[in-house]
Amino acid sequence: MKHKQVAVVLSGSGVYDGSEIHEAVLTLLAIDQQGATYQCFAPDIMQHHVINHLTGEASDEARNVLVESARLARGNIKPLSDFDADKFDAIIFPGGFGAAKNLSSFAFEGADCSVDGGVDSAVKAMLNKGKPIGALCISPAVLARIVPGAKVTIGEDEATASAIESMGGRHQRSGHGAVVVDEAHNLVTSPCYMLEATVSQIADDAAKTVAALLERTK
Amino acid sequence: MKHKQVAVVLSGSGVYDGSEIHEAVLTLLAIDQQGATYQCFAPDIMQHHVINHLTGEASDEARNVLVESARLARGNIKPLSDFDADKFDAIIFPGGFGAAKNLSSFAFEGADCSVDGGVDSAVKAMLNKGKPIGALCISPAVLARIVPGAKVTIGEDEATASAIESMGGRHQRSGHGAVVVDEAHNLVTSPCYMLEATVSQIADDAAKTVAALLERTK
Repeated sequence: MKHKQVAVVLSGSGVYDGSEIHEAVLTLLAIDQQGATYQCFAPDIMQHHVINHLTGEASDEARNVLVESARLARGNIKPLSDFDADKFDAIIFPGGFGAAKNLSSFAFEGADCSVDGGVDSAVKAMLNKGKPIGALCISPAVLARIVPGAKVTIGEDEATASAIESMGGRHQRSGHGAVVVDEAHNLVTSPCYMLEATVSQIADDAAKTVAALLERTK
Repeated sequence: MKHKQVAVVLSGSGVYDGSEIHEAVLTLLAIDQQGATYQCFAPDIMQHHVINHLTGEASDEARNVLVESARLARGNIKPLSDFDADKFDAIIFPGGFGAAKNLSSFAFEGADCSVDGGVDSAVKAMLNKGKPIGALCISPAVLARIVPGAKVTIGEDEATASAIESMGGRHQRSGHGAVVVDEAHNLVTSPCYMLEATVSQIADDAAKTVAALLERTK
């Protein structure tokens, strides 16, 4: 049997300005443990900013999303502009503020946010082919901006849920271990670190999301 | 029952100039899944250099080991100078070039390397109390520099094994799934990404190393 191919879209490396590292690594682990193959991608753009993760404050450094995401992928990563929906069975977006700061402007503009062109194209290409799209943590908000009427979860944060509804999405409250499936659009989402969580809970959420994603591949 | 407390010593965030990210996250996961509690530490020193993980080349940036390690720990990290051996049941060092470039100079000076003072103190404090010390990937070479006669594994790389022997250590070849235990010094080591590996193999190696480490706590 041919291995299922999953594209993993990263947004930097670090929860406050990039991909949440535990979610990203545990997504890769889940894909590998469930017998599929992954390829990491990230947009070749500058980060919105760089946060010192010790102090929580912005620094005056400038970092590139693709270059920093390469840390998570041990160098094996491609620019998102190279993504070809024909070559993948599914795509998934781990969370972290990078999704809301680099892949989109959701962290700053909420329901009025814009989305990176490469992310928009990749999601729409998979949508048009009916291939499944996964998103963890805050990333479902980005899907809601791209996909009209998307049903997603980001857990139970009221402000984020409200912004998703303002974008025309439908938010479903959820707890750990829950995966919300939008049958119409073939979306699978789970809350991960949008809820208080241990790293074991993230491993469990990522595994369940990836399982639901792979089940929905053709 | 009181949870066992494990100190995890990081060396940055990224395989080529810091902690190997998969090994670090999967060590945290193993500790949590096995019912223990972790606290991350890192020395508050500048990285030896910064490597662009996309190209593999050195950049002209300057980054701090503690600040970058904070990305792996979601901000919950302490300077290694705060480490108190009385408060921990075990200590573990994930791998990545950061162990050989920041925690020590092994990558540049081999058997003649020096070791960061905080790392040296932390290891000796645990050794003096007979508490177990774990190390993954290239980190066992750092233990060999600190602990005379240490028996460790770094897998099967001949040059590294030879350097360990030159430092007075004893190298034991190993493959994935193997954990080498030095009963006399209470050291547990495994090869992880010193061998070609999938992320699932790293999860397995980290879980087995942590299990051996926790078994050896009092």
